[in-house]
Amino acid sequence: MAEKRYSPLVGAIEAGGTKFVCATGTGPHDLTRATFRTGDNPAQVLSAVSGWLAEQQHQCGSLQAIGIASFGPVDLNPHSPTYGHITSTPKPGWRNTDIVGPLRRTFPGVPVGFDTDVNGAALGEYRWGNGVGLTDLVYVTIGTGIGAGAMAGGQLVHGLVHPEMGHMPLPHVSGDTFAGVCPYHGACWEGLCSGPALLKRTGMPAEHLPPDHEAWVLETQYIAYALANLVCVLSPQRIILGGSVRKAGQLGQERLFRMIRTKLQAVLNGYIVSPALDEGIDNYIVPPLLGDDAGVCGAIALAQQAIG
Amino acid sequence: MAEKRYSPLVGAIEAGGTKFVCATGTGPHDLTRATFRTGDNPAQVLSAVSGWLAEQQHQCGSLQAIGIASFGPVDLNPHSPTYGHITSTPKPGWRNTDIVGPLRRTFPGVPVGFDTDVNGAALGEYRWGNGVGLTDLVYVTIGTGIGAGAMAGGQLVHGLVHPEMGHMPLPHVSGDTFAGVCPYHGACWEGLCSGPALLKRTGMPAEHLPPDHEAWVLETQYIAYALANLVCVLSPQRIILGGSVRKAGQLGQERLFRMIRTKLQAVLNGYIVSPALDEGIDNYIVPPLLGDDAGVCGAIALAQQAIG
Repeated sequence: MAEKRYSPLVGAIEAGGTKFVCATGTGPHDLTRATFRTGDNPAQVLSAVSGWLAEQQHQCGSLQAIGIASFGPVDLNPHSPTYGHITSTPKPGWRNTDIVGPLRRTFPGVPVGFDTDVNGAALGEYRWGNGVGLTDLVYVTIGTGIGAGAMAGGQLVHGLVHPEMGHMPLPHVSGDTFAGVCPYHGACWEGLCSGPALLKRTGMPAEHLPPDHEAWVLETQYIAYALANLVCVLSPQRIILGGSVRKAGQLGQERLFRMIRTKLQAVLNGYIVSPALDEGIDNYIVPPLLGDDAGVCGAIALAQQAIG
Repeated sequence: MAEKRYSPLVGAIEAGGTKFVCATGTGPHDLTRATFRTGDNPAQVLSAVSGWLAEQQHQCGSLQAIGIASFGPVDLNPHSPTYGHITSTPKPGWRNTDIVGPLRRTFPGVPVGFDTDVNGAALGEYRWGNGVGLTDLVYVTIGTGIGAGAMAGGQLVHGLVHPEMGHMPLPHVSGDTFAGVCPYHGACWEGLCSGPALLKRTGMPAEHLPPDHEAWVLETQYIAYALANLVCVLSPQRIILGGSVRKAGQLGQERLFRMIRTKLQAVLNGYIVSPALDEGIDNYIVPPLLGDDAGVCGAIALAQQAIG
């Protein structure tokens, strides 16, 4: 019983652009899950998600809270009339979609925690992964898009809207003629380094690229510039790099991380003096300990936070 | 008396690379101050500062705390043996200088608040200036160097060391052949946009540059890139832009700010949807309400925070 009180049974929704991963449980080692295609009909998927959570509740006992870690942009301002909505997404069917509301109506009285997918993943790693014991960290995902969630002083960063780190402007590598794929910014971080950017640049998906392909050199250089920006602006104690592109296919995750670490050190050039950026660099830029579960575990953590 | 309890009399030190501005008082409208040249002999200036504060205490009553907002890099980790030191500065005489220690020895039992100069200024604006009522803001100073302090969720951002935002890498404007002046990074933000960078680029100090000089076009473009980075990473509710360069001599502060605002909007290109970045842009990028007093007021606020 005591265990149960400290890790209450909650529901979790990782709302992604391709799929919704739902779970009930208490943490990464106690998860029951189901996956639903995001599609272009929000009412349908939200109804399926609610139905599955209700069924789980029937089988396993009351959910003490529900956490949602969502793709965005989302409205996180609790005083806003559109709090809990996905707002200006270009994703067909999902613009201005209330996702917190339908859950609240299905589970009246159950607290709902809501944040961005990347803030969720940052919180998941903070609670159970490579962020345990830290107060300042960034979780980056590089996949179909690029996003990042940050914790500063033990609190997730929200601000005016929420961070959109994937869209930071970056230096262009001399001689690189690729214009980037971001419809808004061309060669912002996401425009240069996302999965679709790699595909457009090389004609191949990341997992098929030969390990010695020049695109990996550029990819890691731009990631190093972006991480240098994060180091300069947020001074995180660690950067956790997730998403599909970081697995780096034939190159391999370990080699990709080594390239990024070396290039980050070259960009910073010794200006910021800290063992973490010097001999500790292998523990400074790391993959998520929770792997692809960082998001859904983050939604569990968001739910548990909503109880407090 | 009630007033006094809410705004206790404290001592403040804004430790800058050129001068130390010291004050006693309770806030921006109640300051007695003195200025000392920083020079290259820390023991001398710290002794003068302590002496002046002790004399003020003798005349005005007990100082309830002392706040120090210092140039850096500084060690802000209270568990570190070099907490309260200026660490790896290239400034002659000041490397590895303990500044909190001598104050603590002169004023035993008096709490000492200690942070970076820019975090101090951010806190000062938050307490009495253009940050009142906000939770997420950035204070930028562009002068001899470039630095910025950030508040996220109502707390100053510290992290691994502390932010060094002036050293973020930036896109290079096409056709601009200037290599920048940063000894570590060449064309980082500080290397491109600080006062010495403008001087090196044009042969003239900022205050003598004609308003139609092309350097202002480049200066504002690079500042816009840097502020776009801050918006993407921290999502501040407002950015306060201080320092000497922002006064912009013959061009004038108001025109400089208009150029920066327009270019920031062009860089972001409507991706982040918020009235603050659209029709509210004039209130989004603003000068400090406390003007050149942001730093010393910040030191007052750091002192008051140290009491709590």
